[in-house]
Amino acid sequence: MLTVHAYAATAASEPLAPTTIERRDVGPHDVLIEIKYCGICHSDIHHARSEWGEQTYPVVPGHEIAGIVSEVGSEVTKYTVGDRVGVGCLVNSCRECEPCLSGREQYCLKGNTLTYGSIDRDGISTQGGYSTHVVVNDDFVVNIPEGIDLDEAAPLLCAGITTYAPLRRFGAGPGKKVAVVGLGGLGHLAVKLAHAMGAEVTVLSQSLKKMDDGLRLGADHYFATSDPAAFEQLAGTFDLIVNTVSAKLDLDAYLGLLTVNGTLVNVGAPAEPLSLQVFSLIMRGRSFAGSLIGGIRETQEMLDFCAEHGIGSEIEVIPAEKINEAYERVLASDVRYRFVIDTSTLA
Amino acid sequence: MLTVHAYAATAASEPLAPTTIERRDVGPHDVLIEIKYCGICHSDIHHARSEWGEQTYPVVPGHEIAGIVSEVGSEVTKYTVGDRVGVGCLVNSCRECEPCLSGREQYCLKGNTLTYGSIDRDGISTQGGYSTHVVVNDDFVVNIPEGIDLDEAAPLLCAGITTYAPLRRFGAGPGKKVAVVGLGGLGHLAVKLAHAMGAEVTVLSQSLKKMDDGLRLGADHYFATSDPAAFEQLAGTFDLIVNTVSAKLDLDAYLGLLTVNGTLVNVGAPAEPLSLQVFSLIMRGRSFAGSLIGGIRETQEMLDFCAEHGIGSEIEVIPAEKINEAYERVLASDVRYRFVIDTSTLA
Repeated sequence: MLTVHAYAATAASEPLAPTTIERRDVGPHDVLIEIKYCGICHSDIHHARSEWGEQTYPVVPGHEIAGIVSEVGSEVTKYTVGDRVGVGCLVNSCRECEPCLSGREQYCLKGNTLTYGSIDRDGISTQGGYSTHVVVNDDFVVNIPEGIDLDEAAPLLCAGITTYAPLRRFGAGPGKKVAVVGLGGLGHLAVKLAHAMGAEVTVLSQSLKKMDDGLRLGADHYFATSDPAAFEQLAGTFDLIVNTVSAKLDLDAYLGLLTVNGTLVNVGAPAEPLSLQVFSLIMRGRSFAGSLIGGIRETQEMLDFCAEHGIGSEIEVIPAEKINEAYERVLASDVRYRFVIDTSTLA
Repeated sequence: MLTVHAYAATAASEPLAPTTIERRDVGPHDVLIEIKYCGICHSDIHHARSEWGEQTYPVVPGHEIAGIVSEVGSEVTKYTVGDRVGVGCLVNSCRECEPCLSGREQYCLKGNTLTYGSIDRDGISTQGGYSTHVVVNDDFVVNIPEGIDLDEAAPLLCAGITTYAPLRRFGAGPGKKVAVVGLGGLGHLAVKLAHAMGAEVTVLSQSLKKMDDGLRLGADHYFATSDPAAFEQLAGTFDLIVNTVSAKLDLDAYLGLLTVNGTLVNVGAPAEPLSLQVFSLIMRGRSFAGSLIGGIRETQEMLDFCAEHGIGSEIEVIPAEKINEAYERVLASDVRYRFVIDTSTLA
């Protein structure tokens, strides 16, 4: 067992605080990673506060992990000490069901093992990346190619793959018009990725406040959704809309922006149900879809794509002591566009 | 102008009655069709009664038309007198927009021309197939191959293509599990088509009343949706669910029956909005889609497919004088599975 520094929530209502946790011994198929950076995802907050179901405390959040391999198990052939690697939302799955066998471990039928807040196959609670080290089975470790700094790579492991997967699945590319709803942690990467894929990209944001950023990141157009005229002007325009906003929204209004056979895909979910007129779908053969992160193979593909196109996250690096403050700023949408913890400040 | 016999609604609240209507002279690109049979579609009733918007009366419904070419215009090369032909829901479109150019005239961006209840490009109100003859531009006429009787072919022109198009678009075929919700005019053809495409077919019907029929038509399994246990047993099963029922239904319950990346597609729409939990889509990467009839090219493809596989509609042929009675029986779901008017009884 390895005792390592971490930052943990000790109860739903408590701020996160420094602590130490145990990591398992490095097994034959394990990789010990010295974590360099870990992104702060909105879902970290939901978990730390038991907003998505009661957690067992302490909870060490963090599933946007970038670091360096410091030890490998006897059977590991893919990685060696010194490699730049990442870990995202998943650290295990059943490996036997059809989704697992087809590289869609996020949809594992027996239930995947999340990087934190899960009970792993060995019966031990998983703990996330707000920590100096983590031990992960090599099948759930990905290579971070040269050309992406580790700090800018970290958010790609969740925010990047969450937007990359639906863009690929629904055919973002040359000749396609893609809208991204919300320019936050996920949205800003969706813009960069869709632009790099060759699509014509439009940001649909509540206001025009971040318009300069949006255009700089690769958007061709930028509209404020607070302006009803935008919905008239853009009716029937988009082949694909990636909705990164979890707030409740007027589905029919957004479906009306899709062209024939277009798809609106949600990567976040509001807590309350949404309502829609089925005619909004039928009259143009449209679809409303959901998408959950991505599989391990596709995460590697995404990282390779990002390296090729010089894509990293826009980040604000913070020391561990600012995690609680960062949480408040995430909730206030006061970050451009992702907080990343410098884990050297944990020790 | 040609004066022909027809059956028309003269007001929203009046029963249909015999009348005569005018058909335009056969233009260079027109085909004069002697209608032999016309199916009764549920939407005929909605239109005749102004339930989908106020109609201009008289309304001659009918968009499941099968007949014989009796005259062709000077420029028509595809058809000759004596050919077996059909006309579905569309008789014109702009022919210039992307959907039209790609054979998806049903989604014409400038608005397609419906077989009845539309104003055609020449400014004249269209009138449907409850009539002895119709004049249609040859681009909107399809060939009914030998091997399908004209009476059994008629319902394919709407009910057939409406279910064929989403089955094809969403990949029904060998190794795929397809569920059909509702065993009515559309549903019974969806079962035959999906079975012929090689899919494993399950009917989800309110009760087991029509189970023998369902299995005879090609279903492999049959479940009553009134039994909550069915939803538990079938959770995560289907690659595709074709919902032919327009009644309001519990979307989340049906979405729960889809496998990873599965699609629930509605071909009918309830009048009221439906609500759903976006998590039902996200957690398995599912889609909820809509589909509207099909294009002309695909309608021909569907008819060729039906001829090849010996598929026709299950029908009850009626004389014109029974149209009003048939409407009541359609509303009571008392038809197995489509009424078809023998138009020789109109004269």
